[in-house]
Amino acid sequence: MSDVREDGALALEWVASYLERLREYPVLARVEPGEIRAALPASPPEEPDAFADVLRDLDRALLPGLTHWQSPRFFAYFATTSTEPAILAELLSAGLNQVGILWRTSPALQELEEVTLDWLAQLLGLPAGLHGHLEDTASTATLVSLAVARATSPGRRVVVASEQAHSSVDKAARLLELELRRTPTDREFRLRPERLELGDACAVVATVGTTSSASVDPVAEIAARCADAGVWLHVDAAYAGAAAVCPELRGHFAGWERADSVVVNPHKWLGVPTDCSALWTRRPDDFRNAFSLVPEYLRADEDVASLSEYSQPLGRRFRALKLWAVLRCHGRSGLQERIREHVRLASLFEAWVRDEPGWEVVAPRHFSLVCFRREGPDEENERLLERVNASGEVFLSHARLADRYTLRLAIGNFRTTEDDVRLAWDVLRREAGR
Amino acid sequence: MSDVREDGALALEWVASYLERLREYPVLARVEPGEIRAALPASPPEEPDAFADVLRDLDRALLPGLTHWQSPRFFAYFATTSTEPAILAELLSAGLNQVGILWRTSPALQELEEVTLDWLAQLLGLPAGLHGHLEDTASTATLVSLAVARATSPGRRVVVASEQAHSSVDKAARLLELELRRTPTDREFRLRPERLELGDACAVVATVGTTSSASVDPVAEIAARCADAGVWLHVDAAYAGAAAVCPELRGHFAGWERADSVVVNPHKWLGVPTDCSALWTRRPDDFRNAFSLVPEYLRADEDVASLSEYSQPLGRRFRALKLWAVLRCHGRSGLQERIREHVRLASLFEAWVRDEPGWEVVAPRHFSLVCFRREGPDEENERLLERVNASGEVFLSHARLADRYTLRLAIGNFRTTEDDVRLAWDVLRREAGR
Repeated sequence: MSDVREDGALALEWVASYLERLREYPVLARVEPGEIRAALPASPPEEPDAFADVLRDLDRALLPGLTHWQSPRFFAYFATTSTEPAILAELLSAGLNQVGILWRTSPALQELEEVTLDWLAQLLGLPAGLHGHLEDTASTATLVSLAVARATSPGRRVVVASEQAHSSVDKAARLLELELRRTPTDREFRLRPERLELGDACAVVATVGTTSSASVDPVAEIAARCADAGVWLHVDAAYAGAAAVCPELRGHFAGWERADSVVVNPHKWLGVPTDCSALWTRRPDDFRNAFSLVPEYLRADEDVASLSEYSQPLGRRFRALKLWAVLRCHGRSGLQERIREHVRLASLFEAWVRDEPGWEVVAPRHFSLVCFRREGPDEENERLLERVNASGEVFLSHARLADRYTLRLAIGNFRTTEDDVRLAWDVLRREAGR
Repeated sequence: MSDVREDGALALEWVASYLERLREYPVLARVEPGEIRAALPASPPEEPDAFADVLRDLDRALLPGLTHWQSPRFFAYFATTSTEPAILAELLSAGLNQVGILWRTSPALQELEEVTLDWLAQLLGLPAGLHGHLEDTASTATLVSLAVARATSPGRRVVVASEQAHSSVDKAARLLELELRRTPTDREFRLRPERLELGDACAVVATVGTTSSASVDPVAEIAARCADAGVWLHVDAAYAGAAAVCPELRGHFAGWERADSVVVNPHKWLGVPTDCSALWTRRPDDFRNAFSLVPEYLRADEDVASLSEYSQPLGRRFRALKLWAVLRCHGRSGLQERIREHVRLASLFEAWVRDEPGWEVVAPRHFSLVCFRREGPDEENERLLERVNASGEVFLSHARLADRYTLRLAIGNFRTTEDDVRLAWDVLRREAGR
């Protein structure tokens, strides 16, 4: 067994040292499939091992198989950060091991989740009075939102979203046996409201900050169309929602206050580690009607709805603690500062690409994601990305936009500096020149 | 902002001290709805707070609203433990912030998850070659299993389970728009295989260790019926599955090796904090057919299926790390020792109840849950439970069995001693005598 003080000091030092050395590791793991498995015993130990042995094997067997999402040079997908207050809050959360199944099984878990979701709504400029709760991921948030939409529109079995909407909409539609109708986008990869056909629809998913290019659907117009047709509007702002912390970026979110449900992932651009996805609704009764189910062994005297009545899983962990720690220890000003710096760095990188012959920016940049490519064939860009990522110096990912292979540089790590972004540009140009 | 070494030492000391003082707290939180919310500011801070302030507010504002699941005197629902190696593994996991969306985004996350699920299957005596992955909760594991069952049986829309099956089966059926047919149980609260009507069924859910009484459905007979009818068998062993670590308890699980899917929650009786639910299947291709969906921006060269292709959410956190730490630091012998001790304590408590005039045991005891009551009306038992829980000394919950209000004493905390169980019995008798 493990002594929490003695072994805890080792674990803490491991984390502190890891965070200091992030720039030393190749960002993308350099192992072959099966290599990590082969470094681990085929069977569990009969007798207890010391925790120090676990740490040793973390270094020996697992470290080579980590892709360093914490690296300031991680620019793939949407870059993220687990900031220090959140890391320590996860330690507290594991120590407390709260299980929220009913209000009484952890009043603090439930009420802190409600309070932090209120706080975050205020920070993002969402309207007062929304009902908020946390899900693991935006996939789940979108799934449960569409389930409620389905329940409120008997007989209507179509979900409408743009061709740029996230794949989780497909997965949700599949599980819910809804038809997903994807509409073509305009030249800036935005849903075209005039193309919406809502007669048989139970829901529209509009995206602020799509995964491929961070494009912004015209939510205000879509909301008006949905209101006229009596169709549920779900706004997926999983990545970009964090930007609404800055008033000067709120224009991109116009209309989201009219959504029936909105998802924003604090685990993407707000310094909180995976998993932590915030879901708000102005129709909590519809959620509760769709999900509430309290069996006898969970009946209690209090007249308080449990958060589990608003979603699919029964048990929930103390996720709000890390969100609370981040909002406390960064404050509004600290979060704004990070978002603004990331937008500035993305804008800088965009300018470098734009000014460099042989390169092109291929989508408007609204937030901290730059979509760009080498002029020339797709294959050249694909091989370029492979070489860049194989260098281990930085890690970028790709998308297909207007049927062209496109490189993506996503800034979102709180430790990323201008030097890190410059390094990415240097590596890209160096590898393009080979 | 927060210094991970300095603030980490504070957080670690907070956890260590908390674990030492668990018996000092009233087990069930003694607050009124809204009290915790009222102790917190209505808005987030503008400027950063120190992490020490967060800890101070954890003590001041949140501690009174905790129900102490870590208490050795928590006997409600199914008692759980977050053991020391798992607590520290969650610290590491938050520090690493791995996000498993594709194999390449964290080969170590994916392969450690596969290896630890293999290890756990070995510990539980499950057959070799099953495909395992982790979900957050058994609710999700059951949901995705039934979704696969539905996909493999077009046109059959009925799920069959006993009236004692967990409410998550109702929730899953509702989301999947399946009809749940609940069959009556025998006098020991077991599903009666001869009552199964499978003509229109896509799945049967059999339970080993039901929530109300830990009854055990006759899985071997059910599996034979399912095989004949070509119906998916999902085995819910969320709580009791851990007991299969002890060979002498494996008889209860006879037949589960024939299941199409099996769920066991390491976060219940295996020393791992919420959330961590293990799901195995012998039909991984059916899972992948039901869930796989890889959009362009996630395409990679490796020919390795990602774990996200076997379930609904796209992103997964590094949950396997805590399961690995627990299997390492307890070993097979350590886990067996805990399970055996809990079964011994439950058997002792059962004997006390049986030998005491005016009390009765109301269900067979197979594992570490004792179902019992005062002879007399339901209302008397209900008020007794209220007084016992209001004392703060212990926390028990209830069920309704054979239409009678029943008290439940669930042993499952790794720190529970015979003295703790004796205290529960003393408090029960004392309060019954009032």
